Amino acid sequence: MSQSPDRLFTPGPTEIPHAVQAAMALPMIHHRTPQFESLFEQTQKLLKQIYQTQNDVITFSASGTGGMDAAVCNFFSKGDEVVVINAGKFGERWEKLAKTYGLKAHVITYDPGVPGDPKAIQDILTQEKNIKGVFFQASETSTATFHPVKEIAKVVHDHSDALVVVDGVTAIGIHDIKTDAWGLDVVVAGSQKGFMMPPGLGFISVSEKAWQRADHSDLPKFYLDAKQERKAQRNNTTAFTPAVSLIRGLHAACELMLASGLDALFQKHLIMTHAMHAAAKALNLELVAEKNPSHCLTAFFIPEEIGAGKVKKALETDHHMIIAGGQDALKGKIIRIAHFGALTFSDVTAVMAALELTLHKFGAQVNLGAATTATLKVFSKANI
Amino acid sequence: MSQSPDRLFTPGPTEIPHAVQAAMALPMIHHRTPQFESLFEQTQKLLKQIYQTQNDVITFSASGTGGMDAAVCNFFSKGDEVVVINAGKFGERWEKLAKTYGLKAHVITYDPGVPGDPKAIQDILTQEKNIKGVFFQASETSTATFHPVKEIAKVVHDHSDALVVVDGVTAIGIHDIKTDAWGLDVVVAGSQKGFMMPPGLGFISVSEKAWQRADHSDLPKFYLDAKQERKAQRNNTTAFTPAVSLIRGLHAACELMLASGLDALFQKHLIMTHAMHAAAKALNLELVAEKNPSHCLTAFFIPEEIGAGKVKKALETDHHMIIAGGQDALKGKIIRIAHFGALTFSDVTAVMAALELTLHKFGAQVNLGAATTATLKVFSKANI
Repeated sequence: MSQSPDRLFTPGPTEIPHAVQAAMALPMIHHRTPQFESLFEQTQKLLKQIYQTQNDVITFSASGTGGMDAAVCNFFSKGDEVVVINAGKFGERWEKLAKTYGLKAHVITYDPGVPGDPKAIQDILTQEKNIKGVFFQASETSTATFHPVKEIAKVVHDHSDALVVVDGVTAIGIHDIKTDAWGLDVVVAGSQKGFMMPPGLGFISVSEKAWQRADHSDLPKFYLDAKQERKAQRNNTTAFTPAVSLIRGLHAACELMLASGLDALFQKHLIMTHAMHAAAKALNLELVAEKNPSHCLTAFFIPEEIGAGKVKKALETDHHMIIAGGQDALKGKIIRIAHFGALTFSDVTAVMAALELTLHKFGAQVNLGAATTATLKVFSKANI
Repeated sequence: MSQSPDRLFTPGPTEIPHAVQAAMALPMIHHRTPQFESLFEQTQKLLKQIYQTQNDVITFSASGTGGMDAAVCNFFSKGDEVVVINAGKFGERWEKLAKTYGLKAHVITYDPGVPGDPKAIQDILTQEKNIKGVFFQASETSTATFHPVKEIAKVVHDHSDALVVVDGVTAIGIHDIKTDAWGLDVVVAGSQKGFMMPPGLGFISVSEKAWQRADHSDLPKFYLDAKQERKAQRNNTTAFTPAVSLIRGLHAACELMLASGLDALFQKHLIMTHAMHAAAKALNLELVAEKNPSHCLTAFFIPEEIGAGKVKKALETDHHMIIAGGQDALKGKIIRIAHFGALTFSDVTAVMAALELTLHKFGAQVNLGAATTATLKVFSKANI
């Protein structure tokens, strides 16, 4: 224990805004009441704005993985051929889900930091004429890589009638994801990312084309049955008991996200990403995804002689900042620092201050102040 | 809106204790940290105490229905023969779940208020030699009926090697359910009932026998995969991102539930049930389940000339008390009033005061004070 509270720079959950905490701390309401229905109606409208869609956005009381599961079991059938981009831990999750439900997946695997190539998908779609869906991440959180969502969606629609299924868990509310304009059929999100909420809610947007597929899906589903939820949620209720306190928080969070407009929200995350990259350059740290970065978080390789685990630990102990390490093959090699949601520009500078001090302490060639100054220059240039 | 807050006498969610609210309002912690693991380790120990089991109790970030779904898709295979007791809306849910996953269900249907008959189950088990599971509710919330869990479990084990699968959503933490002593293989619970929490967490306890069945289950599951969660949760973490704030609340709630011992907890709900029944008698109201009542809630028939809907509405408008009506065929015929969790003995008297005033106002033959006095006599006799 310490006097200083730990601060979260993890890629979800992150800090919760006070207004969201306050909303969740209100006395309980029952979910089969006009009061809940009114709250849920308003929340659904705000969700659609953030998703940039007129499609249904279905809420599940589940984590983002529940949303990913729903995106598979509702819209596909056993034996369906699909394409999966696997460029990290969450791409691998699509692959596992496809296998779980007996889909035949054509998997395109990429090294960490390499974005999905629309041409590679086009090649598969021109060879295989029976592809029912293309699954990928918008932001692959394990490597902080952004896949070209718009371009991938375009080749899918130009060359097939497959559904475009996007894991937008660390993208919705952070990146400018145009669900309708880009023709994204199913987009998954989760409460603990761009929504700045505790975990516990998962969302999927569903296009009319995807709903038509749902009518023919033969995969079993009950708790995650999207059609059953559609019927209820179009009437501003839920098929099963919803996580009431989280939905109260979600309503407050959506209002905060929309307060200055979506453009400002996306711009803020872009500027923060630029600042992180400038700091990385000043520290001579190699980025995992330099050219196609996620705006949710940044992943840095840490030189072997220092060790990513040691850096992560020092940030916790000396600076009370919780960051993420690498997963699976990247464990011990990288650190991942999130910069989204309730975090501020000066929080970005602060975490870089902690990082440069830590690297300096461990003997790296660091000009003290270089990384923090680099972040400030980015912010200043953006008129902040 | 009114000066007086609405109070929940609904069968979940109900009032949240302040200590639970405070725990959920603490700043967010990340789930991949020793801090979360320590919290989850303690919480799992408390959960097992409340469940009266040494079995694993697996936590899902999902509602109780997610737990019911998990109880089916993890331990059975397509075509398995099972027995289902359907004595109301939640029994019907077992039936729907069995159908969803292609199980062959022998359904025993009962009228509202009639408890399951162990002999009827025995008859099926002696005729059908291939029954893999017997599904029923401990407390059927739609009719406030308690099924004889212990006796049913005994006949199942005496006459088959079927799994005993109990929906304990409105029973765990309310009724004395002896998971291990009675040989209950899978018991489902949810956070918003006996745990006095917001909705959003579902639990299943799993016996060794059930885990062995899980190894042979061919039903697809991913988000609700119990074996994957077992591996994680035995190491005090979760396979997928957990609903962190709810688990913090759950820890506080379990501590409150165990503070005076389980016997006191069950005794309190029993006394409250007696008080409700005494009040019903004083008001000449017929109970839906007189002889085998749930201790979670009481269901009263309301005379047709008054109307259950009108009574429910008046309790809301005049007394700021939210109660439940009937579902499906019982809609408009009954009211259901919960008496569990954070509610106190005097709350029981207060809701009966509101009910007798309301019935009196609508012209029923009511001796004002009779119902409230009846509750007080029960409490006094129990030395309260």
